[in-house]
Amino acid sequence: MDTTLPTVDQPADAHREHGYTADKQSLLKRLGRIEGQVRGIARMVDEEKYCIDILTQISAINAALHKVSLGLVEEHIGHCVVGAAQDSLATGDPEIVNDKVREASAAIGRLLR
Amino acid sequence: MDTTLPTVDQPADAHREHGYTADKQSLLKRLGRIEGQVRGIARMVDEEKYCIDILTQISAINAALHKVSLGLVEEHIGHCVVGAAQDSLATGDPEIVNDKVREASAAIGRLLR
Amino acid sequence: MDTTLPTVDQPADAHREHGYTADKQSLLKRLGRIEGQVRGIARMVDEEKYCIDILTQISAINAALHKVSLGLVEEHIGHCVVGAAQDSLATGDPEIVNDKVREASAAIGRLLR
Amino acid sequence: MDTTLPTVDQPADAHREHGYTADKQSLLKRLGRIEGQVRGIARMVDEEKYCIDILTQISAINAALHKVSLGLVEEHIGHCVVGAAQDSLATGDPEIVNDKVREASAAIGRLLR
Repeated sequence: MDTTLPTVDQPADAHREHGYTADKQSLLKRLGRIEGQVRGIARMVDEEKYCIDILTQISAINAALHKVSLGLVEEHIGHCVVGAAQDSLATGDPEIVNDKVREASAAIGRLLR
Repeated sequence: MDTTLPTVDQPADAHREHGYTADKQSLLKRLGRIEGQVRGIARMVDEEKYCIDILTQISAINAALHKVSLGLVEEHIGHCVVGAAQDSLATGDPEIVNDKVREASAAIGRLLR
Repeated sequence: MDTTLPTVDQPADAHREHGYTADKQSLLKRLGRIEGQVRGIARMVDEEKYCIDILTQISAINAALHKVSLGLVEEHIGHCVVGAAQDSLATGDPEIVNDKVREASAAIGRLLR
Repeated sequence: MDTTLPTVDQPADAHREHGYTADKQSLLKRLGRIEGQVRGIARMVDEEKYCIDILTQISAINAALHKVSLGLVEEHIGHCVVGAAQDSLATGDPEIVNDKVREASAAIGRLLR
């Protein structure tokens, strides 16, 4: 995994769109761990380990991915939807926020499946 | 569980807290259908139907419940979180919206499990 | 919910196909409880309770349904698949069991989604 | 997928315990792809892509992992549980298969959560 984290100059409102920026390091660390878990499963398959033990490891990855998703959902609602709600109040255009809400809801729906 | 709402005399923005009010009838219809599906499964068990057929029915209920949940999540974000974001802008108190975001995220997390 | 449980004379191998027969009473009780939970949610919607509290109740139903599904899956594997495996050994026809395995796997796949 | 029953002449019942052995190459290929998807998400986070797009990718990984799990569950039931059922018939010891059924069911339960 590439863990180099280039420091980027960001416009003032970047945090609204990318709420996870603050947690980027910890998010990348978690994803690196998940990548390692997937590689560990490949190794178990290669060494012909017992399938129940492989399934247990897959459940652990599922749980780790759910945690990452939930963190992103929370950041998205807390930054992007909230920001759009406030823009929408300022501009008087409700569509700004309605779009974001529908988009968030669609993404959550894909996770629920 | 006490679900009494903080009664702070809010006639005008009551829809904000209960975004599903507009869809109440269709939501109740859907829940009535799910209740009937659960009763149908009990009947299948009682008549000792084939377990695979029962499992298929349970999958249908899961899907129907996911749809209801997702509708409620969308309404919640679109009304409650958005409303709090706008209140928060008006009052300058970020905690109003932060609480709502955390609460929504926790509810979504319980659904994802 | 209809909770009358007519005792039926069963052929000798009924337990193989309907492994849940032994647990029928407890399964029906659980389904009755789930039906009540769905009705409780309809009541909450009708009384316009807070959507987060409704979502929490839906998560509880999801968990209860998962438990019922898992019980049925276990009974199915333990009776139907195992019975077919033994029939298959006795008759020398592998298709008897292969069909059951595919069917079980498809049902589990529908639950996983 | 090869679901041929291990009815004949098995050297050391390897296929029974590791039903996925036949599919090992395709399983490893799929896991390699999932590993790449996880790395792709890390890259998206690093490049501060839009969170909704990241969530969509996570849903794709969830689906890919579910497919892998389901394949392993099917292999496990089709080889390990079926083999134990037949051993159990041969030896007259029901515990051989009961253990395998409970174990499979527990693994499926962990996936359902």
